[in-house]
Amino acid sequence: MNSDSDFDDFHFATHYSDEPTRVKQIVTRFFKDQSGTPLARVESSDVVLSIGADHRDDCAVLDVHGPMSLVFGSDYVRGPKFALYERGLLSNYDLGYYLVIANVSDIAAMGATPVALTTVIRYPKTMSDAEFQAIVHGVSDAATACGALNVGGDIGGAERVILSAAALGVCRLGGALTRAGARPGDALCVTGPVGTAGAAVVYFGGPDSGLDGFHEAVLLNAWKRPQARTVEGRILGDLGLATACQDVSDGLKATVEQLGTSSGVGFIVDRQLLPIEDATLAVAEELGLDAVALALSASVDFQLAFTVDGRMVDTCRAEFEKAGRHLHVIGEATETVQFSLRLSNGTLEPLPGVTWRHQDGDVSKLATAEP
Amino acid sequence: MNSDSDFDDFHFATHYSDEPTRVKQIVTRFFKDQSGTPLARVESSDVVLSIGADHRDDCAVLDVHGPMSLVFGSDYVRGPKFALYERGLLSNYDLGYYLVIANVSDIAAMGATPVALTTVIRYPKTMSDAEFQAIVHGVSDAATACGALNVGGDIGGAERVILSAAALGVCRLGGALTRAGARPGDALCVTGPVGTAGAAVVYFGGPDSGLDGFHEAVLLNAWKRPQARTVEGRILGDLGLATACQDVSDGLKATVEQLGTSSGVGFIVDRQLLPIEDATLAVAEELGLDAVALALSASVDFQLAFTVDGRMVDTCRAEFEKAGRHLHVIGEATETVQFSLRLSNGTLEPLPGVTWRHQDGDVSKLATAEP
Repeated sequence: MNSDSDFDDFHFATHYSDEPTRVKQIVTRFFKDQSGTPLARVESSDVVLSIGADHRDDCAVLDVHGPMSLVFGSDYVRGPKFALYERGLLSNYDLGYYLVIANVSDIAAMGATPVALTTVIRYPKTMSDAEFQAIVHGVSDAATACGALNVGGDIGGAERVILSAAALGVCRLGGALTRAGARPGDALCVTGPVGTAGAAVVYFGGPDSGLDGFHEAVLLNAWKRPQARTVEGRILGDLGLATACQDVSDGLKATVEQLGTSSGVGFIVDRQLLPIEDATLAVAEELGLDAVALALSASVDFQLAFTVDGRMVDTCRAEFEKAGRHLHVIGEATETVQFSLRLSNGTLEPLPGVTWRHQDGDVSKLATAEP
Repeated sequence: MNSDSDFDDFHFATHYSDEPTRVKQIVTRFFKDQSGTPLARVESSDVVLSIGADHRDDCAVLDVHGPMSLVFGSDYVRGPKFALYERGLLSNYDLGYYLVIANVSDIAAMGATPVALTTVIRYPKTMSDAEFQAIVHGVSDAATACGALNVGGDIGGAERVILSAAALGVCRLGGALTRAGARPGDALCVTGPVGTAGAAVVYFGGPDSGLDGFHEAVLLNAWKRPQARTVEGRILGDLGLATACQDVSDGLKATVEQLGTSSGVGFIVDRQLLPIEDATLAVAEELGLDAVALALSASVDFQLAFTVDGRMVDTCRAEFEKAGRHLHVIGEATETVQFSLRLSNGTLEPLPGVTWRHQDGDVSKLATAEP
């Protein structure tokens, strides 16, 4: 697939593009057209890559023999470079816990059930056995909380703690939810509050005083005990109700734009329908920020954002509620590929908030919670 | 599974155990008895973890519906911290290539066919687009060389280049090769020369003069274009001929000891049967080292070491040769769990060489090629 005649004629030895540009101009060329490739045949059963990296989705999907698809993804986490860890607010246990949730969330976003993880845990010589055990303990507990098992990986030395993982999930054949199926008129939904993790970074990155202990605990908990929306993902995948799905680990604004771009639709988000934690509102008030812009900005919340045919919203909500989960309709898909916020008086304005990926761009300091 | 009442009663906040001790005393407790766990059910098909981390094998194995097992593993590579990279002898392309081979080798060691990889590629802001593309290019070419596809993963910023991956393979149901099945009397075999990668580190870590260009190229090539033994692995898995199998990425001495410990057997390795590259012999001569000790020491060669019932060696060799591959019988399994080298006069002595894992132990500087 690397047969472009001009492939090695690049002249960007001195270029330093941002991440989206690199993905678009470099990575994409290596991955193009891979979906649909037969990968192997075992005992007359074919293994086919149905959704590859060319789809740029949360995970890849492999169809194997029988009624099952496999969902396969991988995430590195900054771990010891998290601002809250550097400030002493997260423990090594928390880092291990977070590593698993970040990876399982991508499986949930595909509508699949997580089954197994491999983890890479590298540590410096200065890390004691107790600190090392805390990481492994966090990994183990988070996997258990998600109904998955950490089945192996790689443990060894490095100059600093390095945490990475890969996750495997299963869903019914063809049942994986992509980012690409939203249709104009579909309802845009999320599974819970957005912006909490980002608000935590903004708040604890400052003088971090002013909020009461309960609000501070809610903010910290978004990092210490994040939840992967596995129950919601499985319901959406099993029932085939969602037309598109993605986790909001890049922040809601980025997620809405990615869902829209993949599906070829736009979105209107209703300002007053956004679920936002009181703690996030309190941070916005304390720091004089617009709460909705904060909630839409870079924030790793692990909620699912998804679209549902408007006539099926009640069915979907009922299924969620049977499982003790919640569905929040926050807007709708539009034919025009634009991303707008609708105010209470009906006027539309551009979707506010900042995303983190354009690291060399004009990212303000509003929220800097890089995944 | 973390219900040991004494689990949190550890008092090793000030302990800094080496890696094998940590794996044995800490990691093992979190993973025990996981093999055999049902993980999920999709459309009345069960997904069962047949070989988990508690087996301490090259990979985990999941049985899904139908005639297929999945093999799942993960490896981090030191990449920019490779001694040869630091000396300017490896390129970014080489690091990407190596990352894939290290991961695919573990799939081959289970007797499975590699189908898909996810990769984590993190890079510093000081890395140009061209350098970044070189890594992705190496990853892509190595995956193609192995008949697998890089189906996604994680790309983003970090303080330095961080490379990690996970690989997925398939084999016939129950066909995965573990480290645990060797029986006394089995022939011990390898797929090709051992010690080359370690010899490269020893040679280029010194004043690196004295060898001719061809030998130097052979040594470097062990790092620049390593080969995963996918063809041999698949033959061994398909035919069910090997009783135990592992890749030699920890060096042959370590591998033989691990195979023996897992299987409850010992091994006698015949000194004169070891396949050793001329380049490795030249390094030993140049530096005044024992060539066999060098060949057995820490060296990431990605050969497979495996055991075969003595009566099946010819069948196995014939199958290998049909595919243009080679089988070298280098010794045999014994009832006594001891690891010996047999000299040409028949005398036995302890298996020479040094392994790398005991990082705080008495590792000499003979070979320091950490994976």
